[in-house]
Amino acid sequence: MEPANRSEIQLQKETLRIETFSDGVFCIAVTLLSIEIGVELHGEVSNAGLTDALLHKWPICLAYVISFINVLLAWIGHHGLFKMFRQPDSAIMITNGLLLMLVALVPFPTKTLGEFLLTDALKTAVIFYTGYFVLISLAFRLLWFAASRKKELLIHDITAKQVRQTTRNENIGLICNVIIFGVSFFNPWAALILSFVMWVYWIVFA
Amino acid sequence: MEPANRSEIQLQKETLRIETFSDGVFCIAVTLLSIEIGVELHGEVSNAGLTDALLHKWPICLAYVISFINVLLAWIGHHGLFKMFRQPDSAIMITNGLLLMLVALVPFPTKTLGEFLLTDALKTAVIFYTGYFVLISLAFRLLWFAASRKKELLIHDITAKQVRQTTRNENIGLICNVIIFGVSFFNPWAALILSFVMWVYWIVFA
Amino acid sequence: MEPANRSEIQLQKETLRIETFSDGVFCIAVTLLSIEIGVELHGEVSNAGLTDALLHKWPICLAYVISFINVLLAWIGHHGLFKMFRQPDSAIMITNGLLLMLVALVPFPTKTLGEFLLTDALKTAVIFYTGYFVLISLAFRLLWFAASRKKELLIHDITAKQVRQTTRNENIGLICNVIIFGVSFFNPWAALILSFVMWVYWIVFA
Amino acid sequence: MEPANRSEIQLQKETLRIETFSDGVFCIAVTLLSIEIGVELHGEVSNAGLTDALLHKWPICLAYVISFINVLLAWIGHHGLFKMFRQPDSAIMITNGLLLMLVALVPFPTKTLGEFLLTDALKTAVIFYTGYFVLISLAFRLLWFAASRKKELLIHDITAKQVRQTTRNENIGLICNVIIFGVSFFNPWAALILSFVMWVYWIVFA
Repeated sequence: MEPANRSEIQLQKETLRIETFSDGVFCIAVTLLSIEIGVELHGEVSNAGLTDALLHKWPICLAYVISFINVLLAWIGHHGLFKMFRQPDSAIMITNGLLLMLVALVPFPTKTLGEFLLTDALKTAVIFYTGYFVLISLAFRLLWFAASRKKELLIHDITAKQVRQTTRNENIGLICNVIIFGVSFFNPWAALILSFVMWVYWIVFA
Repeated sequence: MEPANRSEIQLQKETLRIETFSDGVFCIAVTLLSIEIGVELHGEVSNAGLTDALLHKWPICLAYVISFINVLLAWIGHHGLFKMFRQPDSAIMITNGLLLMLVALVPFPTKTLGEFLLTDALKTAVIFYTGYFVLISLAFRLLWFAASRKKELLIHDITAKQVRQTTRNENIGLICNVIIFGVSFFNPWAALILSFVMWVYWIVFA
Repeated sequence: MEPANRSEIQLQKETLRIETFSDGVFCIAVTLLSIEIGVELHGEVSNAGLTDALLHKWPICLAYVISFINVLLAWIGHHGLFKMFRQPDSAIMITNGLLLMLVALVPFPTKTLGEFLLTDALKTAVIFYTGYFVLISLAFRLLWFAASRKKELLIHDITAKQVRQTTRNENIGLICNVIIFGVSFFNPWAALILSFVMWVYWIVFA
Repeated sequence: MEPANRSEIQLQKETLRIETFSDGVFCIAVTLLSIEIGVELHGEVSNAGLTDALLHKWPICLAYVISFINVLLAWIGHHGLFKMFRQPDSAIMITNGLLLMLVALVPFPTKTLGEFLLTDALKTAVIFYTGYFVLISLAFRLLWFAASRKKELLIHDITAKQVRQTTRNENIGLICNVIIFGVSFFNPWAALILSFVMWVYWIVFA
C-alpha cells in the first residue's frame, strides 16, 4: 500500500479495475438469486390460500439464504485475496475469469436445490449444489496458486507467513467443501447442516 | 473525515468498499422490480383491448412505486448510517449482510402485493408485504446496534447527541413499521395509506 | 470544480454518490431490456424454421434499439445536469428519484411496443410508449426546476447564460416529446420516425 | 497519465465515466447470461430423473461458457482501447453506444445457440451466433476508427507504433470472426472449435 513510483500506482489501478469488475459480478449474482422467487395460486384465491402458498415457499427461500451467504462469503474471500495482489498477469486473469463464470451461474444450482428440496430428487439436487461449490473452491485455489507462484505478483509488504496462512485457508476451504460434497451422497440433510456449521466457523474464527 | 494516518485511510477504504457493494445490491434490487411487469392480451388484439389491459396493470404498478420508494428511502438511510462508521467489524458485516439479503428479495413481496391487491387474498398480501418491511427495519436496527455498541467502530468526530438521535430514528422507523404491520391485519388499505403518510413525514422532516 | 474548502469537497462527494447510484439504475435498465428477447420454435425444428423465427423477431429488436438509444441519451442528459449541481437538497433527491423510477420501468413500454408493433393494437402501443417518454422528459424538467430554483444548489462557476441554455434545452426536449406523443394518436409510424429525427438532431447539434 | 493541467484531469474524468458505464454493461450482460439456465422435470421426480435432466443441460451450459469467455475478452479489449483515449467526442460516444447495445443483447444469440445446438437447426443457430460476433468486432473496429482518426482524441504519450499495432489487432480480430462466420455456413462445429482456437491464441499471445 506504499507505492514506490508512478508505474506502481498504475499496477494497483489495473488490479483495482479487475476487482471492481469482479465485485460487480458477485453483486449481480447475489441479487439475481431472488428473480425466480414468486408465488402462484392454483385454485381459489383467498387469504388462507395465499398464506398456505407463501408458507410452502420455504424451500426456495432456504436455498436463497444458503446461496446468499455462500456468495457473500466468497466475495469476502475474493477481496481478501485481491488485497494481496500487486499486479494481474494472464494466469490470474484466467483463473479469476473461471471463478467469476462459476459465481455468475450460482442461481442455477440454487434454483435446482430449492425446487427439489422436498422431492424424491433431493439427493441429486444436494449433490449438484455441493459439487458446484467444490468447483468454486477449486477456482479459488487455482486463483491463489496463480498469484502465489511468482513473488512479483504479490504486494511487497506481504510476509511468507501470510502466504502460508492463505494457502492453508484455501486448502481448508476446498477440503471442507469436498467433505460436504462426499457427505451429500449418503445424507443430503447432514451435508446442508455441515455447510451451516462451516459458515459459523468461518465467520467466528476467520 | 480527517484521517489521522495511513491505517485510518485503510479503514475508510474498507468501509467504503462494503458500502459500494451494498449500494450495488440496493441499485439492482430497485431496478429488478420492473422485470415482472409486462402486459399480455388474451382474446382479440385491438387498440381498445390493449388500452384496457394496460389500465388493468395499475395494481402491479402501484406495488412497484411503493417498493421503489421504500428501497430508495432504505438506501438513503443505509448511507446515513455508513457515513458514521469508521471501520467494519464482523458484527457489522453480518448484520449488513442480513439487511442486503432482505433488500435483494424485495421483488418477492412486491410481486405478491401487486398480484393479489384486487383479489380476496388482499389482506394476506399486505400482511406479508408490511411484515417484510418490519424485518428490514429490524435488520437496520441490528446494524446500528452492532455499530454503536463499540466506540471505536464509529468515526471520531461523532457526538453523543448524534448517536442518540440515530438510535431514536431507527427505533421510530421500526415502531412505525410494526404499527403499519399491525394495522394491516384489520384494514389492509389503511396500512398502505399509513405507509404513504410515513414517507411524507420521512422526506419532509428527516 | 475548484472546491473552496473541506465541506465543499464533502458536498461534491454527496452529489457524486447520488450520480453513481443513478448511473447504476440507467446502466441496469438499459441492459435488462435484452432479457425478454428470445426465440421459440413452434412446429418442426429446422434451419429454415429457425431462420424464419429469427427474422420475425425484428419488431422486438427495433423496440430494443429505440429504447437503448432513448435511455443512453437520457443518461448523457442526466450527467450533463449533474455536472452543474453543487449539492443535492431534498427537492433534487425526490425529483431524481422520480426520474429513476421511470427509467427503471422503461422495459415495460419497450416490451409492449415490440410485442404489438405489427398488430392491430399498434396505435395504443405507440401512444403508451411515447407518452411514457413524455413523463421522463417531465421528470427531467422537474429535476432541473428543483436544482435551478436556488442559486446555492448549482456550482459557483456556472454562468446565467448556461442556466438559461439548459432551461431552454429541457423545454425543447419536453415539447418535442409532447409533439411526438400527439402525432402518435394520428399516425403511429410517423411518431416513431419523428423520434429518430429528434435523435439525429440531438446527437449532431447538442 | 501525466495530466498537464486541470482541464486535462477533467477530460480524463469524462473518459473514465464512460468507461465505468461501459464496464457496468459488460458486467451485467455477462451475469445475465445465467438467468435462463434452469432445469425442469417432466414426468416422475426422482434422483435418476434429475441427474438425467441436469446432464442434458450441457448445450446451454456450453453456450454460456462460450459467451462468458467472449464477453470477458471483449471487456479486456474494450479496456485496452479506453486506456489510449484522452477524451471522448461524439463519434466515440456513438460507436461506443453501438458496441454496448450489441454487448447487452449477447444473451439472445447465446440462448439461441444453447437451445438449438443439438437440433436440426444447428447451422442457423451457429450462423446467427458467429454473425452476431462479427457485428461486435465491427463495432470495435468502428470505435477504434472514431478514436484514431484525430490525434487529439488519444493520450499524448502514445506512439505511432502503438496506434498501428492496435489497428492491426482490431483488423485481425474482425477478420478472424468473419472467417469463423464463413466456416459456420459449411461446418457449424468446426466454427465453434475455431472460436476456441482463437481464444487460446488471444489469451496466450495478446
